[in-house]
Amino acid sequence: MPEAVNNNVNNNKETAAERAPRQRRTYYSRKPRAPRSPAAAAPAPQIHIYPLGGLGEVGKNMTVYECNGDMIIVDCGLVFPDSDMYGIDLVIPDFTFVEQNIDRIKGLLITHGHEDHIGSIPYLLQRVKLPVYGTRLTCGLIRNKLEEFNLAGSTKFVEITPKRKFKLGCFTIEPIHVNHSIPDAVAFAIDSPAGTIIQTGDFKIDYTPLACGVTDLATFAEYGGKGVLALLSDSTNSERPGFTATEQKVASSVRGLFARARNKRIIIATFASNLYRVQQIIDIAVEEGRKVAFSGRSMVNNTAMAQELGYVHIPDGTLIDIEQLNKYPPEKVVLITTGSQGEPLSALSRMAQNSHRNVKVGPGDFIIISANPIPGNEKSVTKIVNGLLLLGAEVIYESMYDVHVSGHACQEEQKLILTLTRPKYFLPVHGEYKQLKRHALTAAALGIPAENIVIAENGENIILSQDGMKLGEPVTAGAVMVDGLGVGDVGNVVLRDRKHLSEDGLVIMVATVNSATGQVLAGPDLVSRGFVYVRENEELMEGAKELVEMTLDRCARERVRDWTSVKTRVREALSSYIYRKTKRSPMILPILMEV
Amino acid sequence: MPEAVNNNVNNNKETAAERAPRQRRTYYSRKPRAPRSPAAAAPAPQIHIYPLGGLGEVGKNMTVYECNGDMIIVDCGLVFPDSDMYGIDLVIPDFTFVEQNIDRIKGLLITHGHEDHIGSIPYLLQRVKLPVYGTRLTCGLIRNKLEEFNLAGSTKFVEITPKRKFKLGCFTIEPIHVNHSIPDAVAFAIDSPAGTIIQTGDFKIDYTPLACGVTDLATFAEYGGKGVLALLSDSTNSERPGFTATEQKVASSVRGLFARARNKRIIIATFASNLYRVQQIIDIAVEEGRKVAFSGRSMVNNTAMAQELGYVHIPDGTLIDIEQLNKYPPEKVVLITTGSQGEPLSALSRMAQNSHRNVKVGPGDFIIISANPIPGNEKSVTKIVNGLLLLGAEVIYESMYDVHVSGHACQEEQKLILTLTRPKYFLPVHGEYKQLKRHALTAAALGIPAENIVIAENGENIILSQDGMKLGEPVTAGAVMVDGLGVGDVGNVVLRDRKHLSEDGLVIMVATVNSATGQVLAGPDLVSRGFVYVRENEELMEGAKELVEMTLDRCARERVRDWTSVKTRVREALSSYIYRKTKRSPMILPILMEV
Repeated sequence: MPEAVNNNVNNNKETAAERAPRQRRTYYSRKPRAPRSPAAAAPAPQIHIYPLGGLGEVGKNMTVYECNGDMIIVDCGLVFPDSDMYGIDLVIPDFTFVEQNIDRIKGLLITHGHEDHIGSIPYLLQRVKLPVYGTRLTCGLIRNKLEEFNLAGSTKFVEITPKRKFKLGCFTIEPIHVNHSIPDAVAFAIDSPAGTIIQTGDFKIDYTPLACGVTDLATFAEYGGKGVLALLSDSTNSERPGFTATEQKVASSVRGLFARARNKRIIIATFASNLYRVQQIIDIAVEEGRKVAFSGRSMVNNTAMAQELGYVHIPDGTLIDIEQLNKYPPEKVVLITTGSQGEPLSALSRMAQNSHRNVKVGPGDFIIISANPIPGNEKSVTKIVNGLLLLGAEVIYESMYDVHVSGHACQEEQKLILTLTRPKYFLPVHGEYKQLKRHALTAAALGIPAENIVIAENGENIILSQDGMKLGEPVTAGAVMVDGLGVGDVGNVVLRDRKHLSEDGLVIMVATVNSATGQVLAGPDLVSRGFVYVRENEELMEGAKELVEMTLDRCARERVRDWTSVKTRVREALSSYIYRKTKRSPMILPILMEV
Repeated sequence: MPEAVNNNVNNNKETAAERAPRQRRTYYSRKPRAPRSPAAAAPAPQIHIYPLGGLGEVGKNMTVYECNGDMIIVDCGLVFPDSDMYGIDLVIPDFTFVEQNIDRIKGLLITHGHEDHIGSIPYLLQRVKLPVYGTRLTCGLIRNKLEEFNLAGSTKFVEITPKRKFKLGCFTIEPIHVNHSIPDAVAFAIDSPAGTIIQTGDFKIDYTPLACGVTDLATFAEYGGKGVLALLSDSTNSERPGFTATEQKVASSVRGLFARARNKRIIIATFASNLYRVQQIIDIAVEEGRKVAFSGRSMVNNTAMAQELGYVHIPDGTLIDIEQLNKYPPEKVVLITTGSQGEPLSALSRMAQNSHRNVKVGPGDFIIISANPIPGNEKSVTKIVNGLLLLGAEVIYESMYDVHVSGHACQEEQKLILTLTRPKYFLPVHGEYKQLKRHALTAAALGIPAENIVIAENGENIILSQDGMKLGEPVTAGAVMVDGLGVGDVGNVVLRDRKHLSEDGLVIMVATVNSATGQVLAGPDLVSRGFVYVRENEELMEGAKELVEMTLDRCARERVRDWTSVKTRVREALSSYIYRKTKRSPMILPILMEV
């Protein structure tokens, strides 16, 4: 029933056309529901949902809840920069709203330890102090991260456990165990005076998980029975029909590949946080009598921490240091490494370029990339696969065998959670607009009324109560770019310049002039970078210099003393000359020095 | 049998590690085959294959053949730049080898009219004169292209037809009809004194094509019966098992979607060159009583030309101008548009941004993207889908329905061509290394001996005869970058600068100094672009300025008169100051003007 849903999603034209700068959209055209109780009666308590990230994007998940003046935050993730964010390292949410309300915020609750849910925590805790609530492994991962920022000591951690409720202000929160591609992931049932909200975090349903049990369907059902005001559910795989396969499938596939690689060294790349996958590989290695080594900083750190906390079990004598790798025959070792996404500086990438210090790849290697490329990473992964193949290795990649399963629920799983929780309102979260929209269609197909499905945007203020749903004044939300130590100091002007410079380079004109007469005392000199190879284009540059001399001369003769005008005339003359000759538009920077 | 093939592919380590600059690789370590005839007898005639593009990459296909001193070229395509080729418009092959041998080259033969096979022709014909051999539609597309370069008049075209052989020097060439995603595609059987070589061009096997008949399997088989020295075959889909589906499947899928979109305007995006697809859509539109409009420059031009040449048939009264689109009710029109790859300036992209002059997208639109994203374009396509959905349109994209089939042969089709032609030598072409390698494995599985399968590189000189295969001295080959009017004037230095500028911007230090005393007469001034937003970072920039003043002062006091040393000291001081303060490394350009 796509038409039905169309009416209630944010499809007014301004949204798409004017996404930046953000415009206030009118929601009040939606017919407000008549309150159930007479106007005189006390209004039903309200809960506000403020998504600060994760809507219309993959990453940077962060949601603030407010009820009776109390606030809590769920997740605080980062997103990796788009290709047009030149030089940016990562992108975090705008924390203005949190800072404005810090006195009311009771805590930061984390669903699981992936970067898109925890990556921005250090940047938030640099600005405000907040206790962090997470399961054991999640806290471990966050603590590791905070140590790099010298914030671990000053941060209070509260370890939470599924089925054990805790109170924060007027909220009672129950963590619910869910399956995901990292252990110790939870959903939250957030009970408030206005009603119960369930936020799934990232989840899937694996009926035969390797450890830790199936997603706690009974608890979801129990809340469904008591009444759920709203469900916020993971939309990552909303476009995929069916069910996500069990992690066991990977185990059997990897076991088969180990058999095939009998005489070779095995190198497996996967996500450092996917400790189930890592554990499987270790188990099979032990069965096959192979030693295990780790490669890549995050792989080494994560597995050490996970071992310490008991999430990964490595029998004594199995683990070897990567430095010792070459002391064993190839058929006696497995190397587990980072780099499955083609990251240019990762261990696997260095192996593919034959520049890894300890690992020289050759025909004796059997390499398994146990991950699918995240959209945008396809080309980098291909580059690595080509490199490894060229070195003579056998490489298992992409969907050649079942060496990877997703960590996210597909449509049938999403339907199951919707059916168990029976929410009054539904907010698809975590995803691009197309994914949220598809999830909304799934919910509509299950009978959730179109007017109760909200595809929200970051910064909106969704107010729910037993009386109905409305939208309040939006709050500050946005993307803050991190470049080196700078948080938010690179804005659109700087990015635009970087883009311009990257496309056509720049030409600098510098001249020293007599401030009284306008006479040129030194120069003009032309300096270019990223434009043309000057030695092979002397004629072009000579012509440009003559043109600038003429322009400066003319300005002097015409007694133009306004240096801005002089610079403008130089810029225009140079710019049109260069475009005519090259069809390029480098940035042109005229600099005049007065003596 | 991967191990068997491993021995004969180019897997020596230098290749991967040192890909640029290119190193001469030794092939002579391969054991030469003993000649059949006694040493005294005349040697068997030899044919040289020089791939100048298309190996280890997707695009830029170009191959030169030489026998008895005669040469021919097959295809002359372009490739679109990688994301690290900042500001580059397109990439063409290095034509040095062609220019060196122009007197011996009898003609340029083209398999079909796609950019990766014809896109570089204007750049080649700017340098050398050559007759162009192609089928009718292919010649039409090339002529259109040459007109933009004012080269159409001076170029001799020879129209060729499947089954009609022609001679060029010692070569006899027969075009063989093949199915592909553009009409009038051919393979070439190239008969020479050394034997027959078959180059497939891009192909697939469609047993129920919409027009023009099935790939001419009988002719491939006939050559197979007579003996084929070598097969060069399309590797694009070598990683995909099975068969590529017939174009008819798209027809039935699109027909179903038309029924579903009954009351809506239909907008379909596809490749402008896929005239079969365009014809289908027109046919269904006519059945449904809808008018057809075209949008996007290449769509308008290609269909006009194809109509003129008889490749597209549009009943009178069906075609309307895009300007008239809004005069018809939505359910009475179909708009066929470019932009299926998410190209930022395409018609569909402008529609998604709500900035198309004639087409305002809204809830009354049903949009079909009838193409799969080419690797690397996934994110741009997603952006467009999000935009169109936000405007309220219903959008069919990716593999949601069978609205697209590939134009390339999958593994079973590749096996069929290998089986029919029974080549002595096999060279997989058109593809990244991983695709070539996969195709080689397929050939090996069919029993072609490993030592007769060559995964070559651009610039190699593969010499075949009835006596055996060897590798000669390689020839010049490479990627020439086109930026605006400049062909090859942007090299690695310029690209490196653009990359540097794009990541951290630049800081210019300029000062006028007394050439005798070294005393600073004006400045130092700091100008930055793409680095930080200066107004919000005054302190940083002030600190930098003071540091430069100190450095210049010290140089003057120490009587350093070598301006290069002064500049180096300024650069080093600024660079480490800025890195310490920001963890960024902008390009630093010190400029000193002497008075």
